[in-house]
Amino acid sequence: MKPFSTVEVPVMSVNGDGSATRLDVLAVEEPLEIRIIHPSTGETTISVTMRTPGSDAELAIGFLYGEGIIRSLEDVLRAGKRVRAACGKENIVVIELAESCSPDLGKLTRHFYTTSSCGVCGKASIEAIEVLPVEELPVGDLRLKAETIHEFPARIEASQALFERTGGLHAAALFTFDGDLIELREDVGRHNAMDKLIGSLVRKGELPASERIIMVSGRASFELVQKVVMAGVPVLAAVGAPSSLAVELASRFGITLIGFVRDRRFNVYTKPIRISELAKQFGPPTKGTC
Amino acid sequence: MKPFSTVEVPVMSVNGDGSATRLDVLAVEEPLEIRIIHPSTGETTISVTMRTPGSDAELAIGFLYGEGIIRSLEDVLRAGKRVRAACGKENIVVIELAESCSPDLGKLTRHFYTTSSCGVCGKASIEAIEVLPVEELPVGDLRLKAETIHEFPARIEASQALFERTGGLHAAALFTFDGDLIELREDVGRHNAMDKLIGSLVRKGELPASERIIMVSGRASFELVQKVVMAGVPVLAAVGAPSSLAVELASRFGITLIGFVRDRRFNVYTKPIRISELAKQFGPPTKGTC
Repeated sequence: MKPFSTVEVPVMSVNGDGSATRLDVLAVEEPLEIRIIHPSTGETTISVTMRTPGSDAELAIGFLYGEGIIRSLEDVLRAGKRVRAACGKENIVVIELAESCSPDLGKLTRHFYTTSSCGVCGKASIEAIEVLPVEELPVGDLRLKAETIHEFPARIEASQALFERTGGLHAAALFTFDGDLIELREDVGRHNAMDKLIGSLVRKGELPASERIIMVSGRASFELVQKVVMAGVPVLAAVGAPSSLAVELASRFGITLIGFVRDRRFNVYTKPIRISELAKQFGPPTKGTC
Repeated sequence: MKPFSTVEVPVMSVNGDGSATRLDVLAVEEPLEIRIIHPSTGETTISVTMRTPGSDAELAIGFLYGEGIIRSLEDVLRAGKRVRAACGKENIVVIELAESCSPDLGKLTRHFYTTSSCGVCGKASIEAIEVLPVEELPVGDLRLKAETIHEFPARIEASQALFERTGGLHAAALFTFDGDLIELREDVGRHNAMDKLIGSLVRKGELPASERIIMVSGRASFELVQKVVMAGVPVLAAVGAPSSLAVELASRFGITLIGFVRDRRFNVYTKPIRISELAKQFGPPTKGTC
């Protein structure tokens, strides 16, 4: 992460009755305007998100992927940044789409007409958020050991540089089924951390990531499950609780949803068959690899 | 909170190497469509948010207040709910606005055209989120004791019924300067918890609430500060960290922003003068009440 992702501010720190003035490190939060350019429509702003600067192109690409606007890196000709004159900062990211990619801007308009304060980015109707253009994920051969899951939080903590300094950042981390941490992204917004992570996978041409696990630092909401479904990632683990709709969506698309991963405990809400110790209860997998 | 705010689901619970099947209580997350009706424009959907059912009219009213669409309860003729045929649930709330209230729907359209996954609900441009139609809040006479702030988390915990059961809900709580908890709202989305709380104040005609403190369970983001500014609440306290922009906005509008309120510690980022122990460093208030 770049150094401008944090900022130092003076703070009056109170401990019991005592107080002292010191410097505190904060996570930077700034608006990022996401624009797309396409031959048929020109340049269009499609989102403004409050994010922690860094990995901005990945954020934009991951966001577009999660919304079904791009399908692969081939749909992206160029990702550029622009300085906003008003603040002198690079808070505009412009994604130039290939002509072959045909974003339905009429649909986009309706899509983004309504919005939400909690992560259902501008779905124009309740129906829209229920429609994902994907099939249920197959179970496959890979199994995940309980011990591997127990170790996820410590591995994230060891890699989460900014959280350690600011205490205020969400993380989304990509793991193998063997428990190796491959990528980690941080942001003040948990949906942004997920978009950055998925954007990095789009850039590397690694989607769908059917042999990967994503773990998030907070709760598992409906929309995080939705992004994981779009990325073809079969397992979502969270430090916090899932919501009812997150469980429903995970169940519908065959995602293994794991919550409350902490203190060597976790709960499996859907598709426990992908976890070695629990899979036994469902009989052997078609081809045993665990 | 109503009982439908939680749901029981079967879960495989893993503890170390052992596992057991049991029932887990989840916070319900369902989409709520917010519509307004006005003589000049008819019925218009302005937002879809993923929320925990309960206090839906308050959520809608608080949201409209925070967006500057309504100014007081007099702008609201009626708040009604409708069943969505598709799911058979009351997931539509309709707010009928008085003719005297003139929402600029053209502006609203632009306003909501773009959106965000992290709380900047559909501001159409970066400029839009920087403009709040309010003045800096005066400091006033009331002072808050450090000891009162230390006690906030325990008071919230004692009142947060759903969090205790689900481990997955955000809270926004209204306190007096003496530390009495007046109202508390819970939701899967932290912005929704804040909107519900502010909506309850609109309904009681208690805004601006210049003698109140709001405390939130999570981090203090830009948008939570924005909602607090609109409500005229002079102090925002948070269990978690503030972002850089939250501090900037609080500073600009004279809000006392307190972060990391836990374990008898907290940090004051802006306007420490409203806290008794720190106010001494700034000389006596104009009229002493503490």
